Amino acid sequence: MRFNQVLESIKTYEAGKPIELVVREFGVAPDEVVKLASNENPLGTSPKVQETIRAHADKAHLYPDDSMFELKASLARRFDVDESEIIIGAGSDQVLEFVSRALLNEESAVLMSAVTFAMYEIYAKQQGAKVLRTSSYAHKAEEFIEAYKRHKPRIVYICTPNNPTGDATETVEIVRIIEAVDPEETLVVVDGAYMEYAAAKDARYAVTPKALLRYKHVLYLGTFSKAYGLGGMRVGYGIADREVIRNLYKMRPPFNITTLSLAAAIAANEDEAFVRKSIVLHREQLQRYEAFAKAHGLDYIESYTNFITYLLGEDRKSSEIADALLRKGVIVRDLASYGMNALRITVGTAAQNDRFFAEFEALLS
Amino acid sequence: MRFNQVLESIKTYEAGKPIELVVREFGVAPDEVVKLASNENPLGTSPKVQETIRAHADKAHLYPDDSMFELKASLARRFDVDESEIIIGAGSDQVLEFVSRALLNEESAVLMSAVTFAMYEIYAKQQGAKVLRTSSYAHKAEEFIEAYKRHKPRIVYICTPNNPTGDATETVEIVRIIEAVDPEETLVVVDGAYMEYAAAKDARYAVTPKALLRYKHVLYLGTFSKAYGLGGMRVGYGIADREVIRNLYKMRPPFNITTLSLAAAIAANEDEAFVRKSIVLHREQLQRYEAFAKAHGLDYIESYTNFITYLLGEDRKSSEIADALLRKGVIVRDLASYGMNALRITVGTAAQNDRFFAEFEALLS
Repeated sequence: MRFNQVLESIKTYEAGKPIELVVREFGVAPDEVVKLASNENPLGTSPKVQETIRAHADKAHLYPDDSMFELKASLARRFDVDESEIIIGAGSDQVLEFVSRALLNEESAVLMSAVTFAMYEIYAKQQGAKVLRTSSYAHKAEEFIEAYKRHKPRIVYICTPNNPTGDATETVEIVRIIEAVDPEETLVVVDGAYMEYAAAKDARYAVTPKALLRYKHVLYLGTFSKAYGLGGMRVGYGIADREVIRNLYKMRPPFNITTLSLAAAIAANEDEAFVRKSIVLHREQLQRYEAFAKAHGLDYIESYTNFITYLLGEDRKSSEIADALLRKGVIVRDLASYGMNALRITVGTAAQNDRFFAEFEALLS
Repeated sequence: MRFNQVLESIKTYEAGKPIELVVREFGVAPDEVVKLASNENPLGTSPKVQETIRAHADKAHLYPDDSMFELKASLARRFDVDESEIIIGAGSDQVLEFVSRALLNEESAVLMSAVTFAMYEIYAKQQGAKVLRTSSYAHKAEEFIEAYKRHKPRIVYICTPNNPTGDATETVEIVRIIEAVDPEETLVVVDGAYMEYAAAKDARYAVTPKALLRYKHVLYLGTFSKAYGLGGMRVGYGIADREVIRNLYKMRPPFNITTLSLAAAIAANEDEAFVRKSIVLHREQLQRYEAFAKAHGLDYIESYTNFITYLLGEDRKSSEIADALLRKGVIVRDLASYGMNALRITVGTAAQNDRFFAEFEALLS
């Protein structure tokens, strides 16, 4: 069977290893596995949302309301935007896929930072588009604008805070990039999957979709997978000018989130207290990761997210350390495939972090 | 903002109207709404699966096992195939999307029957491909082979039993089509979303993925949305030669089904007793629809699915009847947008069907 030629250059996404795999392959008891690899909320899912899920278990045979009326109304209230400016995806990932398919082809290019969310590249390559990167993982406006002028990419990705590095971009820098591009030809995607953490830490990094709606060529992405505790339910959203949303809708398959995901997201969106609690826990525990790094002479990237990136020196290989931790039942993300000798560690609960520090310390000595 | 030109010709899928909409727009109490529009299982979701969903509510923050190890193993046992011959989609819909994106471009064509599942056309148009149809909703091998030879489509769709008409295609006819096409250039998709109903009714229509695996250019599609009672959970699968599966995987986004959907599908796949019970109920109730039609001088298409299609005469308009039923809280599918003056009615529980017969009869007199 002959397939489209673009498939030849596509590599598939390497997901964080699931608990089930560690149990299967290394015989660690499920309760003993500590997963700090996928930036899930260590507090789990809000009890109110869990209750909603259980209450909807007898609706699993029914297709969801495909208009997503109630969820869009709830998001519209939260962000002070109109329902027509919102599209829901199976994770913000899926909105990224819609964008690629609506804008890219084999003649186009996309621009992103040197190290950023892997799906930007994968979706671009599925369309046969060329992938351009700046020289740094940090989103430097100068560099982006210069590369934009030279290559005229159809999409510019700004991941803030950035994944898998954890740094963030100041709002003034983002606006500089947005204002430098041609609004007829280039869409700027501002991916705020971890924005709740950055906004709570420092107002200079707080980006709101409402503020971005001044521009007709900007798409803001948010998700329920991180601070809202619904990584397993696959719900994210895009907010943009209604003309952009109307076009992205043409790529949306019907029933793209499940009946239970829809109910869970509506409940999660109304439970701000859980999000605040998650951020408070995170802030306390992040300080422990900073202190641990300093105590052990390790470099790290200052984090505006729910994870931290430890940069390893030449004397240590991130792949070997990640593998040794895995065999002990501690799952972290090795960044070797991103070209960095570094580990990305989700900031977990106090007990999870204790376990990481103990196992990691043993490997350092 | 300029979008890809193919978007101009895309129409979006018209989903069955959800209960919430009837409640909102016509003020019908939720308990009074009878939804027979989306071919959901009228027995709901199996109690065992509901229990599994409730037990997994506290896992909603965790991404699913992206290898889907356990679900694929369970399907492999059920169908006597290898795990490497299986791909999981968010509904079999999503596997259709992977196929379109892996095979089609603006130079290619696809072939399908005159009236069949709407997403074949929508996904083809998203790729800019040309859509060719035979003259009948029935899948006649002669017609398919003749059109194939003339146009050399890259994909041939055989929906059996067919949706939204309810008829089925004999296995010998399907094999004739499969054997007439060039296995290097054309993929035959055999969409068996409603196969459990057809196979239980008449062995001549029973297609198994195992039998189709003799051919390297055939993809069988199945779903948990109908007989398995999980319409709202979005889980389907494709089974094909491992080389086809390997290529479709390149279009699969990570975590394409939810953590709860994965757990639910594993449990549903092991609960064959529930499926048998669903089919027994269906068979009894389908006879009532046939008897009702005969008693009222209505034509219908013989059904091999969990719905029945009533063909209306020139004196009645399907749109008007569907709309009048909707206002009474009875949701059925009007087939006017498919070019048929017909109604597609999901065969419900005895009580749901009583309600439909009463409201429909009032409109006929």
